[in-house]
Amino acid sequence: MRWLRGAALVVGLPLVLAIGLGALALGARWLQVRWLAGDAPAPRLEHKQRYLEALPRVDPAAAPSFVVIFFDDLGWGDLSVQGSRLIDTPHIDRAAAEGLRLTDFYAASPVCSPSRAALLTGRHPPRTRTDRHVFFPDESWPGLLRRLLGWANELPRDEITLAEVLGRAGYATAMVGKWHLGGRDGHRPEHFGFDSWLGVLWSNDMWPLHLYRDGVVIEEDRRPPSPWTGERDEASPLGPGGIDQSRLTERYTAEAVAFLEENRERPFFLYLAHTFPHVPHYASPEHAGRSEGGLYGDVVEDLDRSTGAVLAALDRLGLAERTPVFITSDNGADYGGSPGPLRGRKGEILEGGQRVPMVVRWPGRVTAGRVSAEPAMNTDLFPTLLALAGLPLPTDREIDGRDLTPLLVEGADLPDEPLFYFPVLDSRPGAVRVGRLKYLRSTGDLGRDGGHLTRLDADAESHDLSGRLPAEAERLAATLEAMRERVAANPRGWLD
Amino acid sequence: MRWLRGAALVVGLPLVLAIGLGALALGARWLQVRWLAGDAPAPRLEHKQRYLEALPRVDPAAAPSFVVIFFDDLGWGDLSVQGSRLIDTPHIDRAAAEGLRLTDFYAASPVCSPSRAALLTGRHPPRTRTDRHVFFPDESWPGLLRRLLGWANELPRDEITLAEVLGRAGYATAMVGKWHLGGRDGHRPEHFGFDSWLGVLWSNDMWPLHLYRDGVVIEEDRRPPSPWTGERDEASPLGPGGIDQSRLTERYTAEAVAFLEENRERPFFLYLAHTFPHVPHYASPEHAGRSEGGLYGDVVEDLDRSTGAVLAALDRLGLAERTPVFITSDNGADYGGSPGPLRGRKGEILEGGQRVPMVVRWPGRVTAGRVSAEPAMNTDLFPTLLALAGLPLPTDREIDGRDLTPLLVEGADLPDEPLFYFPVLDSRPGAVRVGRLKYLRSTGDLGRDGGHLTRLDADAESHDLSGRLPAEAERLAATLEAMRERVAANPRGWLD
Repeated sequence: MRWLRGAALVVGLPLVLAIGLGALALGARWLQVRWLAGDAPAPRLEHKQRYLEALPRVDPAAAPSFVVIFFDDLGWGDLSVQGSRLIDTPHIDRAAAEGLRLTDFYAASPVCSPSRAALLTGRHPPRTRTDRHVFFPDESWPGLLRRLLGWANELPRDEITLAEVLGRAGYATAMVGKWHLGGRDGHRPEHFGFDSWLGVLWSNDMWPLHLYRDGVVIEEDRRPPSPWTGERDEASPLGPGGIDQSRLTERYTAEAVAFLEENRERPFFLYLAHTFPHVPHYASPEHAGRSEGGLYGDVVEDLDRSTGAVLAALDRLGLAERTPVFITSDNGADYGGSPGPLRGRKGEILEGGQRVPMVVRWPGRVTAGRVSAEPAMNTDLFPTLLALAGLPLPTDREIDGRDLTPLLVEGADLPDEPLFYFPVLDSRPGAVRVGRLKYLRSTGDLGRDGGHLTRLDADAESHDLSGRLPAEAERLAATLEAMRERVAANPRGWLD
Repeated sequence: MRWLRGAALVVGLPLVLAIGLGALALGARWLQVRWLAGDAPAPRLEHKQRYLEALPRVDPAAAPSFVVIFFDDLGWGDLSVQGSRLIDTPHIDRAAAEGLRLTDFYAASPVCSPSRAALLTGRHPPRTRTDRHVFFPDESWPGLLRRLLGWANELPRDEITLAEVLGRAGYATAMVGKWHLGGRDGHRPEHFGFDSWLGVLWSNDMWPLHLYRDGVVIEEDRRPPSPWTGERDEASPLGPGGIDQSRLTERYTAEAVAFLEENRERPFFLYLAHTFPHVPHYASPEHAGRSEGGLYGDVVEDLDRSTGAVLAALDRLGLAERTPVFITSDNGADYGGSPGPLRGRKGEILEGGQRVPMVVRWPGRVTAGRVSAEPAMNTDLFPTLLALAGLPLPTDREIDGRDLTPLLVEGADLPDEPLFYFPVLDSRPGAVRVGRLKYLRSTGDLGRDGGHLTRLDADAESHDLSGRLPAEAERLAATLEAMRERVAANPRGWLD
């Protein structure tokens, strides 16, 4: 049996050494990130301060106010105005009838954190270090794992948000709802320009899910964590002791309306970032069980009533004509939502993962009942709102979005510019759209991975037209490749 | 370092023993299946012989002939008559205008072999031992692996095919195209009732892909295998030396037309099972590059021209009115095909994985231009063709399909019967459709797996309506559970 002993040693020794050294390294790394690591470096913090300090103050009598209503995981096809036959959304439908509906509007990412960062900063995911899926509570093991891997778990402090710019220029600013851009000191809504906020830091399937007001926990999530499931409600529902999610939409709505009432006399920016229809679903008890769309439909119809209440408050307060309202979603439909006729869902850079509803209501400025297929993205909100407020953009960094004012208020078409899709867990774009054509660099199709050129006006990204339109395929591939190189060379997009 | 040596032994010894014993067991199993195992037992072979011998002969003057045109991986949305805006299929469209189009027709499986077995036998996948994905060439390592695992790799000899029944009753029978139901002696088309055949045994991404006539290789696949990629063209294209796939559709068509011409005076059954649009794609050189749908469109338009040639031959030979033609596909769209507005693709029991085009042309018997949403499945062809030929069904086994004659020739609605969906790699059904409702037992949605009730008339399997329609959900779940138990107790469906 000597050879057996020898074989066991040959196999066992490297394994034991590898496990031992691995455990030591992991322990050291754990100590480092858990106890020693401070805030990540913020190389442009000083630039940011200078930019904010130099901002002019707006004329309170002339400056428009802004309301952004941001749903979580609402799919392209989840509203009756977008073709849903099971979900009835009369208030959003009416807003569309009174304003502009963009059929080809995109979230900047097929998942949550990067899309929120993009909306608030005007920048693509790698710029804001949201290019590694989504952030997790620092207390949970996925949050710790992210930091062990060296992945960002919060919006860097040198990012400039809409709330900071508008607040500095004299706006009242409020966030109501879900943040999902970090939880530690220096990275919560109050640290990024929101004068007030009520809501949650994380997705409603994450643990712990406390309810905050202005950075202070006002209702604690008392559910014990579940160590086997990543402490996630999603993988294994946690017990009782959590906040009452069936009341969240209603609470958010009341808070939003109160903010409008309090700030009716001055320019304001309201960022109403709903928790739903992200899973798990909780409908308001008053209306539960009524939607033809089941529980999901109940939840969306709650959101529609909430939207109606916000719009009615603007009307009642006489604020409608000076307050453009933007109604959209952070990414495409999840499993139980509807992408409408689009291919793919949340998490994918196919159209169904990123194309979302967008309604802009602004009586007197945006022509009622317009529907436009102009491509646009939620990175465009930052430059658009700044343009409408008459404020300059930062000049030390790439702002990837563009000013949509000509499209919104003049009804003009925008020049064709490439629109880039950033996959989850990738720092470089994986697809590009120019006009009606989209080029996907990698389909992930087993054994036949490769480029895929689509005519978005003709089918739902089914047939690859690279062979039929070789010049176009080459042009789009080159555009994408050039952007990939630019982003790889300067992921955060610092200028100068 | 004694403790290190001890730890290495503790870790290494069980590992070495496990590897050693595993290798021995695998070797023994390999010897068994490679060299010792004969044909699998066929418990009902004698019943089958008795049934076939007792069959009456049809009246050659009165019996209808049959043509089944079976595409490989053609999606629900891949024909212009099904809404494709990129692919032009005038011949199939005209057949639909001259006959009946079923919008809710299903393949019996979302993959190839089980669907083919179902079409030829009228039976669900576990009945025919095609409930473990698809068969592979016995020479390839996936084929060997299947047999190591004890999975069937060919249609059992006691299965009764359409060709055997019709041939025994006096029909001329021919298969042209792809078999995919086994390759060894006793399991090729000539052993299952086809008087003649020209075609390939396997999918066109498998190795080796010889061209056969009547069981004899007439063109050999001379490409060397690639041991790293499962010898599959799909994962890594093989070198030159294969058969000329760009000519396959044309060769099949010529063979089919020749068969019709030769057998114009007697009842015949032609099973034209095309190789395309399965990957890899090869278009006919004459027409390549013309379709707006790219290479995929070229390939489908070749198939449309082929269909036109077969229909024209029937017309020219005066056979149209005594020859119903069935035009359909073996499963839903693959990555590069279109499922139309349906959710899911090949491999999934969502609608896009199993719902396929179905056109039935039979001038004088099937009303021209009818479109019906009656659910039906390719398991129905076996009992339907037997009924039209006046032949009795086998009585010793479950025939899962049903006679569609009332729907086809009388335009009647069929009674609502449950339609079952069998997932790949599962012996029991995973979903059931009754009327407009579909119940999916498991969505596979991470962390939220569970039942999913859909109104197929209202959305593309997005919203779960279990909470909205609890009685219906319970009823369908019970129907599905009962079928799961029946199939588990008697997978092959032997009666008595």
